[in-house]
Amino acid sequence: MMRAVDIIMHKRNGKELTQGEITFLINGYVAGTIPDYQVAAWAMAVFFQGMSPAETAALTEVMLKSGASIDLSGIPGPFVDKHSTGGVGDKTSLILAPLIASLGIKDPMMSGRALGHTGGTLDKLESIPGYRTNLTIGEFRKILAQDGFAMTGQTKDVVPADRLLYALRDVTGTVESIPLITASILSKKAAEGANALVLDVKYGSGAFMKDPAASEELARSLVDTGAAMGKQIVALLTDMNEPLGNMVGNFLEVEESLDCLEGKGPADLMEVTLELAARMVVLGGKAANPEAGRRICEACLATGRPRQLFLDNIQSQGGNVPRFLEMRGTYRSPVTAEITAGQSGYLSRIDAWKVGHAGVPLGVGRNRTEDAVSPTAGVQLLRKGGDRVALGDPIMTVWARDEAGLVAALPQLRDAVEYAEKQPVPRKLILKVIET
Amino acid sequence: MMRAVDIIMHKRNGKELTQGEITFLINGYVAGTIPDYQVAAWAMAVFFQGMSPAETAALTEVMLKSGASIDLSGIPGPFVDKHSTGGVGDKTSLILAPLIASLGIKDPMMSGRALGHTGGTLDKLESIPGYRTNLTIGEFRKILAQDGFAMTGQTKDVVPADRLLYALRDVTGTVESIPLITASILSKKAAEGANALVLDVKYGSGAFMKDPAASEELARSLVDTGAAMGKQIVALLTDMNEPLGNMVGNFLEVEESLDCLEGKGPADLMEVTLELAARMVVLGGKAANPEAGRRICEACLATGRPRQLFLDNIQSQGGNVPRFLEMRGTYRSPVTAEITAGQSGYLSRIDAWKVGHAGVPLGVGRNRTEDAVSPTAGVQLLRKGGDRVALGDPIMTVWARDEAGLVAALPQLRDAVEYAEKQPVPRKLILKVIET
Repeated sequence: MMRAVDIIMHKRNGKELTQGEITFLINGYVAGTIPDYQVAAWAMAVFFQGMSPAETAALTEVMLKSGASIDLSGIPGPFVDKHSTGGVGDKTSLILAPLIASLGIKDPMMSGRALGHTGGTLDKLESIPGYRTNLTIGEFRKILAQDGFAMTGQTKDVVPADRLLYALRDVTGTVESIPLITASILSKKAAEGANALVLDVKYGSGAFMKDPAASEELARSLVDTGAAMGKQIVALLTDMNEPLGNMVGNFLEVEESLDCLEGKGPADLMEVTLELAARMVVLGGKAANPEAGRRICEACLATGRPRQLFLDNIQSQGGNVPRFLEMRGTYRSPVTAEITAGQSGYLSRIDAWKVGHAGVPLGVGRNRTEDAVSPTAGVQLLRKGGDRVALGDPIMTVWARDEAGLVAALPQLRDAVEYAEKQPVPRKLILKVIET
Repeated sequence: MMRAVDIIMHKRNGKELTQGEITFLINGYVAGTIPDYQVAAWAMAVFFQGMSPAETAALTEVMLKSGASIDLSGIPGPFVDKHSTGGVGDKTSLILAPLIASLGIKDPMMSGRALGHTGGTLDKLESIPGYRTNLTIGEFRKILAQDGFAMTGQTKDVVPADRLLYALRDVTGTVESIPLITASILSKKAAEGANALVLDVKYGSGAFMKDPAASEELARSLVDTGAAMGKQIVALLTDMNEPLGNMVGNFLEVEESLDCLEGKGPADLMEVTLELAARMVVLGGKAANPEAGRRICEACLATGRPRQLFLDNIQSQGGNVPRFLEMRGTYRSPVTAEITAGQSGYLSRIDAWKVGHAGVPLGVGRNRTEDAVSPTAGVQLLRKGGDRVALGDPIMTVWARDEAGLVAALPQLRDAVEYAEKQPVPRKLILKVIET
């Protein structure tokens, strides 16, 4: 008879668990027959001993099967999605979905909310008046078929094992385990029904993993586990030392996404977006290689079709397009301030972590899942790393939910500005591509 | 504010926990404010990262303080106890207590029960008709003061943190952690009120730790943690590849203890007993060094006083001494068999682990704490490692609780007999002495 304690000890002693053992443990946990203290001890053993790609794939499969998957049958594919490990100012999803949809690749997107210093796609979308992210499965299927993409939150019946396991890991010091992170990401993404996935694995101060080597380990685990599951996955290691683009905030980031779709996007954001898009287009079978994929994407953006699809989706998901366009450039919190250069010289970077953390008192993000966010709070970066500034030059415009939030955020934001005497060497935005 | 998850992560990351952190965690666990899943994750982190002597001492202290200690005030000391990590045929406690009591050193003994392949002092004592091991604190104090030793089981209010923690470790694969074992042993021993402690840390097939190096690590941890707590501790590493003495069984072992007190004990058992006794006598201040201690113990045994104290204690704890003496040599299960030599040559050893495990079906021990044991079941070893045997020579007499038990045990017992062509080199009974 299989016993949870033996499974824990096998892992503790560095053995590779069988698919049967992993299935027994996770199904028992979800069913309530295996108690949380055994799963907690097992998770800590996994933290120390790791898991092979075969074990991680087995874990992902059993987590996936713990709940419902979105049924995309009857909708013509291909289905390709992108997932980011989370960052500051990262709005690439909002640009990528209409872009690849314009090229005949469907993106079934299930997104999350802001937590801690990282932003959340759902919170950004909900800053658009009327926009709904709580689609029924029927609505999701209909909008996906019609617009080529649909954006929704996870329903409760998607990967319940991940919700249970994540809540347990959060309070037992076992969040930072590469195979557990891998299974959490891949089970949720597999539940969406995408055939292929491009991963944006971030490193740097504003990323979940600060260190490029740790990010690469995660990217490698995701790609190898995907391969063990028969899924096509490509991972890009991208820099998150500075916010991506110039806007950090919910409505601010929707606006900047529209700028990108109109050819007016900031260089760093466009660069990362196009490199991700190029891989999605290759995985979707619309280009032979990333170089060709990128050219196709650039040409597609120039047609204006992705911009129109973006607006069509707003309409499809309940948003008011004319009102949204009117609010552009003016939908801002009245509690505002400017941060200016404290010295002359070069900016070496605007620290993503500090801007992200300042976002919580401003109202961009939240520390507890139950807290509300503000649509109109945020930061616009007027200058970024590499720029030359003179004492007193404006560097950021800041909008806060309220006075107290502004007072709390301003010192952190000032502290985020790093100066250099000489012009700094530009950071590499895309460090590496990991594929099987 | 202190949070359990931070304490788990500190340990996970290899940091030394503060006394405050350890106190917060264990007191919270006992009070029910820190859930078992956090303690389980912490225990697994301790398994991998270990604990310093200072941390282990802090854990021991907080566990000790979770319950009542036996109050020995008003009883003149010194108080010295012995603890064994558990073995097969190990009845040294029954001999040591009256021996050192005869020399003016008191032994406040709280013992445990048989579990798995190891025997339990309480089960042995209870095979004496009428003998009570559930003394009240008042009875314990009175008998200790009068006889110089008293033998009881742990009451529920002694070290509740250990009972909780051990039950959790048992089902979460975290039993085999040197610092957690150390704190479990030392907290219970400290609750007895002994000033000094001699530890019999066993290694070999019949021991909890098979490997001498692992046993030495445990012995070192016990001695160092004792030092950090201001307790005098000496540990002997002793061999448990073969049962200690010739008798394995509850009443059988009581009988053999009496044999030892009458100068008729087997050589291996007497050797380990006298080496342990010598250290207890030194710790109790009755001898300057172990050599002198051993001579004092040998002379004391020859006076017959320890034998008389042994019988006095049986009387004090409710036993019927005349009946006990009548039963000697005859109180045996009627379900019996003999194991004979399957070949001629030398015996290399009788494997302690296999004899211990055979003891469960025989009725000597138990696999579940709620199971009853038999007083009259057991094994008498007629020959031991190093002896020359001819084909068909009797090697063991076996007594079983019932026929089914006999049938189950016999193959294991036959398998326990190991042969050699040449006379084997005698095993060293005491490998090392560990002290501060």
